Amino acid sequence: MTRTPRTHIVGAGLIGTSLGIGLVAEGWTVSIEDRDPEAQRLARALGGGGEPAGDPELVVVATPPSVAPSVVADALERWPDAIVTDVASVKAPLLEAARATGHAERYVGSHPMAGREVSGGLGAQGDLFKARPWVICAGDAGDDAVAQVRLLPAALQCDVVEMDAAAHDAAVARVSHAPQVAASAVAAALGTLHEDDVALAGQGLRDVTRIAGSAPGMWADIARLNRTHLIATLDHIIADLDEVREADDVGEALSDLIDRGRYEVARIPGKHGGATREWTPVTVIVPDEPGQLLRLLATAAGVGVNVEDITIEHSPRQPVGLTTLHVLPSRAGELLAALERTGWDIAAS
Amino acid sequence: MTRTPRTHIVGAGLIGTSLGIGLVAEGWTVSIEDRDPEAQRLARALGGGGEPAGDPELVVVATPPSVAPSVVADALERWPDAIVTDVASVKAPLLEAARATGHAERYVGSHPMAGREVSGGLGAQGDLFKARPWVICAGDAGDDAVAQVRLLPAALQCDVVEMDAAAHDAAVARVSHAPQVAASAVAAALGTLHEDDVALAGQGLRDVTRIAGSAPGMWADIARLNRTHLIATLDHIIADLDEVREADDVGEALSDLIDRGRYEVARIPGKHGGATREWTPVTVIVPDEPGQLLRLLATAAGVGVNVEDITIEHSPRQPVGLTTLHVLPSRAGELLAALERTGWDIAAS
Repeated sequence: MTRTPRTHIVGAGLIGTSLGIGLVAEGWTVSIEDRDPEAQRLARALGGGGEPAGDPELVVVATPPSVAPSVVADALERWPDAIVTDVASVKAPLLEAARATGHAERYVGSHPMAGREVSGGLGAQGDLFKARPWVICAGDAGDDAVAQVRLLPAALQCDVVEMDAAAHDAAVARVSHAPQVAASAVAAALGTLHEDDVALAGQGLRDVTRIAGSAPGMWADIARLNRTHLIATLDHIIADLDEVREADDVGEALSDLIDRGRYEVARIPGKHGGATREWTPVTVIVPDEPGQLLRLLATAAGVGVNVEDITIEHSPRQPVGLTTLHVLPSRAGELLAALERTGWDIAAS
Repeated sequence: MTRTPRTHIVGAGLIGTSLGIGLVAEGWTVSIEDRDPEAQRLARALGGGGEPAGDPELVVVATPPSVAPSVVADALERWPDAIVTDVASVKAPLLEAARATGHAERYVGSHPMAGREVSGGLGAQGDLFKARPWVICAGDAGDDAVAQVRLLPAALQCDVVEMDAAAHDAAVARVSHAPQVAASAVAAALGTLHEDDVALAGQGLRDVTRIAGSAPGMWADIARLNRTHLIATLDHIIADLDEVREADDVGEALSDLIDRGRYEVARIPGKHGGATREWTPVTVIVPDEPGQLLRLLATAAGVGVNVEDITIEHSPRQPVGLTTLHVLPSRAGELLAALERTGWDIAAS
């Protein structure tokens, strides 16, 4: 087993503290600091690392993205023998900052992709990143430095993806940053509607705007750091919307856009990194009472049908929900038969 | 109990045939026709109605939206004593067509809002609309005509919403038509990415683009009929995207847009027509094996915690999925304790 590097974390927010807790739990020697003494005290109290004892071998910069480039540069100067990484969700500006110090051979970018539901410093936990992708951008670093940084996702049971920093930033602009902006814009357009009219919303709108409900958090920082790629993506989206808007035949233009969109959606990985499987939906009317969902899944399990995904749609003003089980097409018939046998009210299949 | 009207359905696609099956099952006298003899034969064979016997009292136009205005006008002329309704998802052009005949007092617009997962004529079933909203636009019709048409959603156990036709069209442009266009545009912007880069997609992108994966279907017709409201909504969305794009401080502009979007998202009804409840997410690592989800829900049910919603996120290249149970905040602690007691691997809460 590889000896774990003496690790120092700069920034004791949710991410830094969670990393610290996770690494300490794996037996690593971790120290953690924050310029806010209260945040630093809390992180140490939570077991996210102690006081620094000797120079670190690995430094993880976990500050807000806005200051991450300068903190990375500082860290490269401050600890001339350490490998430095960071966790910001934009990578090229960090690599630039490292290069400006002349020590980019000791800098490796990281982007652990945590679930966005989580927020708040007190919510730190060691397995925040478990089973999530962890992007590594090697930049100018050598194999040894990269290997050192890869020990982090290995210890935290993350799924490592190595990428070029610019490719990473272009990709996250399209898969994450611009979708956030678009979802917010779709939501903001509801502003002209009366309350009763908003009530016509179906599951489609709820899906499109779900991320629009999340807190602004670090989005301002991210947009500033990834401005070029974000704007290029917004340009692409605006051009497509304009094409529908300006078309002589709005129907034809929309059909064309939908066709192009469908082609791309099919490339979004679903299960196990493969292309999205074609699952068959089976929709059941489920009374909104404890245990009903369990009873539904028990019916599926009873005939050995694996439920690949579930969507629950609550009907306005009715004490029932429509629950859709997504199953392999080859098993849908069997599931339907079992549901009918056990008295379930099937809404669509 | 009210006597059910002798009903004639024009158009034997998925919607018309499903309506026919549902009404016949409720004891209604239903006839159904389609200009395609094969579709007509199939609908009758499926029990969606028989041959017309005598003049109908209620006519339901269930043709594709593109021809619905002219078929409604024809129906008003052809059966001078019948109340005529239709099921198109745009309502003002239909009311215009009815008015042009001089018989708009016998026309009532309907928009049964079926789940969009369903398609294909052979998939017809009587409870396609069950527990879904059914919009009624009275237009120039009197109370008796409206009452006659309301018998349809009553028989099919739908949730009736009465609205003005123009308000309906403006609302569906914002809650349905424009979100479809925007989701497709977000998806289309992935076109510049390499396969490996698309793999960075998380649940956020999957949610935003889910409806972009659905078949173009009637979207071209809908966009043509609701062009004015659709374009007004796209203008609103484009203006917001442009504002972020052009801003001196992209971060500030995005924060502002996110704040406006969040305010609107909070107005989208969640459960039972109320504002979205603040549920607490509890994320668990679930091995991808049959019965695991059942075991998870059994743990929740074992302590009497009702699961309000479930999201399942499959991790790229790993044989586990992250499953998030959304529960009332007051029950989250109890659920967590129960999960820990029964050995579940909790990823975030």
